[in-house]
Amino acid sequence: MGTKRSAAATCDDEVCPVTRAVAVLDGKWTILVIRDLLGGTKRFGELRQSLGAVSPKTLTDRLRALEEHGLVTRQAYAEIPPRVEYSLTDAGRTLEPVLAALSAWGQTHAV
Amino acid sequence: MGTKRSAAATCDDEVCPVTRAVAVLDGKWTILVIRDLLGGTKRFGELRQSLGAVSPKTLTDRLRALEEHGLVTRQAYAEIPPRVEYSLTDAGRTLEPVLAALSAWGQTHAV
Repeated sequence: MGTKRSAAATCDDEVCPVTRAVAVLDGKWTILVIRDLLGGTKRFGELRQSLGAVSPKTLTDRLRALEEHGLVTRQAYAEIPPRVEYSLTDAGRTLEPVLAALSAWGQTHAV
Repeated sequence: MGTKRSAAATCDDEVCPVTRAVAVLDGKWTILVIRDLLGGTKRFGELRQSLGAVSPKTLTDRLRALEEHGLVTRQAYAEIPPRVEYSLTDAGRTLEPVLAALSAWGQTHAV
């Protein structure tokens, strides 16, 4: 219909890669957590502060899901007060091009 | 911390481009609608069938939000039965690199 079929749109496979990516990255907090962790290891409180409106429960849920997908590691230090840090794994860092594409689009798209 | 700061993660601006992109693309259905429309104009029923579990109300809401953002156009034909078609605008097609990045990542990331 005047639009050419793009690689991203050829998703007739039983398991479309876009569907698979979106299943992991669902929800805006997940992507923003990854954005923050691409900048380096962060404490829970740092992520919470950066994300602003996120509830602690939602942030915990998102981090746990990212851990389960092998994209984030959690390191707890037995200090007083306890310190918990989150980092991207090597697999998590493979999301950098996705974030770069989102960033580039966000820069050009006037809301 | 051993991870180098990436372009995507430099989001100290008041309006981070990733935040802006995610605000528009929030929710998995939105991204999957764009995936489908990158393949060409689609009728409402075709989108609904392609997306499987989406409710008509949710799909309508997502399409309306995409229209409001200027990414999708809606064309209604006075036929019996009425025909309604959705297409990406030029602005909508600028999302192709985002979908391509998601697709590439989904292909390499084992769930």
